[in-house]
Amino acid sequence: MNHLAKIKSCIDSSNDQQLEKYVNHLKFDELLTILNQLPDEEKIKIFEVLGDYLALKCLKMLTPKLQHTIINNIHHQKAAKLLNAMPDDDRTTFLEGLPGRVVNEFIKLLDPEERTSTLKQLGYPEDTVGRLMTPHYVAVKKEWSVQDVFDYIKANGQNSETVNVIYVIDDNGVLIDDIRIREFLFVDRNKKVSEVMDNKFLSLLVTDKEEDTIKVFRTNNRFALPVTDDKSVLIGIVTIDDVLRLAETENTKDIQKMGGSEALDEPYTSISFVNLIKKRAGWLIILFFGEMLTATAMGHFEGEISKAVVLALFIPLIISSGGNSGSQASSIIIRAMALGEIRFSSWWYVMRKELISGVILGLILGAVGFLRIYLWQRFGWYNYGTEWLQVCFTVFFALTGVVLWGTLAGSMLPLVLKRLGADPAASSAPFVATLVDVTGLIIYFSIAFLIMHNTLLAG
Amino acid sequence: MNHLAKIKSCIDSSNDQQLEKYVNHLKFDELLTILNQLPDEEKIKIFEVLGDYLALKCLKMLTPKLQHTIINNIHHQKAAKLLNAMPDDDRTTFLEGLPGRVVNEFIKLLDPEERTSTLKQLGYPEDTVGRLMTPHYVAVKKEWSVQDVFDYIKANGQNSETVNVIYVIDDNGVLIDDIRIREFLFVDRNKKVSEVMDNKFLSLLVTDKEEDTIKVFRTNNRFALPVTDDKSVLIGIVTIDDVLRLAETENTKDIQKMGGSEALDEPYTSISFVNLIKKRAGWLIILFFGEMLTATAMGHFEGEISKAVVLALFIPLIISSGGNSGSQASSIIIRAMALGEIRFSSWWYVMRKELISGVILGLILGAVGFLRIYLWQRFGWYNYGTEWLQVCFTVFFALTGVVLWGTLAGSMLPLVLKRLGADPAASSAPFVATLVDVTGLIIYFSIAFLIMHNTLLAG
Repeated sequence: MNHLAKIKSCIDSSNDQQLEKYVNHLKFDELLTILNQLPDEEKIKIFEVLGDYLALKCLKMLTPKLQHTIINNIHHQKAAKLLNAMPDDDRTTFLEGLPGRVVNEFIKLLDPEERTSTLKQLGYPEDTVGRLMTPHYVAVKKEWSVQDVFDYIKANGQNSETVNVIYVIDDNGVLIDDIRIREFLFVDRNKKVSEVMDNKFLSLLVTDKEEDTIKVFRTNNRFALPVTDDKSVLIGIVTIDDVLRLAETENTKDIQKMGGSEALDEPYTSISFVNLIKKRAGWLIILFFGEMLTATAMGHFEGEISKAVVLALFIPLIISSGGNSGSQASSIIIRAMALGEIRFSSWWYVMRKELISGVILGLILGAVGFLRIYLWQRFGWYNYGTEWLQVCFTVFFALTGVVLWGTLAGSMLPLVLKRLGADPAASSAPFVATLVDVTGLIIYFSIAFLIMHNTLLAG
Repeated sequence: MNHLAKIKSCIDSSNDQQLEKYVNHLKFDELLTILNQLPDEEKIKIFEVLGDYLALKCLKMLTPKLQHTIINNIHHQKAAKLLNAMPDDDRTTFLEGLPGRVVNEFIKLLDPEERTSTLKQLGYPEDTVGRLMTPHYVAVKKEWSVQDVFDYIKANGQNSETVNVIYVIDDNGVLIDDIRIREFLFVDRNKKVSEVMDNKFLSLLVTDKEEDTIKVFRTNNRFALPVTDDKSVLIGIVTIDDVLRLAETENTKDIQKMGGSEALDEPYTSISFVNLIKKRAGWLIILFFGEMLTATAMGHFEGEISKAVVLALFIPLIISSGGNSGSQASSIIIRAMALGEIRFSSWWYVMRKELISGVILGLILGAVGFLRIYLWQRFGWYNYGTEWLQVCFTVFFALTGVVLWGTLAGSMLPLVLKRLGADPAASSAPFVATLVDVTGLIIYFSIAFLIMHNTLLAG
């Protein structure tokens, strides 16, 4: 009796023990030859009893369609074991050949760690819904009765992330409705699912951005949303608890970036010193290089300063006022962008609003600055020299200009960064301050020259 | 036949139409006299048909206990109408006399707007869970069967915010467990609720802070949490969708404050100009006053500057570096505090971590600054004078000191503000920068004096 006949006889007599013993002692080549000669149902029976190593090896040699048939028909636990044991790249190749709905069935079988790496390799880019979703949901058909739904949940729902919402799919896996479990609780058990359906649902696309997902959840009272691929096939759900955590993580990153460091990506209390310094030093050094331009600019004005040392006194005041108004504006705009209130296309709206804000804020600070010098001089608390009134006016105009410039730069920078594909939150307070410092100095000394070129700065 | 007898006969014969006509034509005084002579069940029947105006007027004259009996026994819609029509203060007085559990029953009857104002007046302080909770939940008793629970949900659950979690209370309204609806779906309908219970639950206190609630939801996978009063009586639930919105609002406030403005409290795109300027000008002016101290400090160093104008060149570079490192540190610490990673008690831990970070970051920037001057001088790109090497060292030590100081000030300020009962987020980047600017100048000129007192700054 040859191998094939022996195996056939084991299968026919349902002698699983004998079959197991037999096939696991065959050489890989022999086994593959036999497999190819058997009909699909018998292939499945062999995989059922085959050890993991041989099973994986054989599986790899089959067509994707056959692989699918086998994984889908062998015992659940066995399939899970096989998939989990597959090397990552094999698994990805295997899954990539399958339609979204089927991939999803398989992904359910994976351990959490394997699942993460698989989803990653399946090509859902970072920061997309694909990385956020879970495949553990309950999907039903519209022909089912409500009783069927409850029976199904009882049998299959234990693992699902939430049974609060039940999804209705058609025979192709296309999402056609979502129904809250309460709707089922309120109706007769003999009703068909189609009678409970309202055909209104909100769904996410697997390629949607994570941050947009936060917005969808914030503006709709949903605890979970279904995720589909580009063919509307249901492939997962996103639950709001994950969205809350995501929102907090995104906000943490934004706040850290806006403070002028890289996102730490781990809690302050557990991050190592080396990493903490790494995340902070980078931007500090970049900003320092930017800030070195102030030394260059100041170099150009050394002559002016030596002629009118009084001008030096107000340098910190003027450049800081520009920095402050700039970081105010940038924080407000970054946040409005994160909340989706503002897009790049509304830059002109922002520009006008900030132009007026900048002028008003500039005039207010300019006036206070003017008074500061005026009063100190009048009451003799400090002597700004014979041309003190010119100093007053220089500071007034410089403050107005620098604050206006800071406000405009701070508000436009996040929009420009977004346009360039960068993160708006990178236009941190220190970044804006640095930008404004250099230009602030130029504004200040230019105004001083205009006002004083016949007096203090003459010759 | 007197009024009383007529009314009695209407009630006895269940002639509601006649009764309605009759009682609504009575004068208030007469009506009240009659009401007082009737047993409670008949009072209820009268309220059932009484117009809103008269009903409210009469209700006000009854004892709280009677009020409660009537509101609780008349038709649901009628009760809701009456409660909603009550003037706010009357309603509050009425509700305040009742135990939490009963109050809650009544609050369910109110329209959303009335509810908000009532909850407010019932004394749940702003920013507490009391303002966040909804009274629409499903509570059951442990003696009930699972079938009873489903029947109850069917009859009463339509209005509840979520039926995903069912709460178990004892006869006093004390919360004893929460059970996910799925647990009920998976068990036999004849089982008792007590058999499904695990007696493990997480609950919020009505006086808990809203921001702590975010933390609880972030670290536990819950879609809703029950809220109890100080006697463990269940009085509401908080759902995660509200928490997500709350978290985003809190983050918006934090970010705006950290940028150095007040929280806008409304979207950028809808806030009026006047409000936008108001929210921004306040802090800008306060910071400007702080920053004016730099002019004062600079005044003290005017002599030094006129002797060594070269010192002026590096003022913006040095103070900005301090500001940058400070705003980095403050953003990181503010966020870590908001996430609950750091409390005031861990100030010493933060201090040590930031001390070392500050020294390292300071040395890095100091070294870059040293090289900047050294290279420019060596390659003849700029002439810093005969004592240029002293300038190098002054800038090196000043940068190290100022960055260290900025890091420490930026990290400690949020903790100090928290300790003083203020919002840590108020230690904005501009606030820290302003603080560091003034002290940075003093550090810079002190180091300059130490190094140059025999040379450039001599005499």
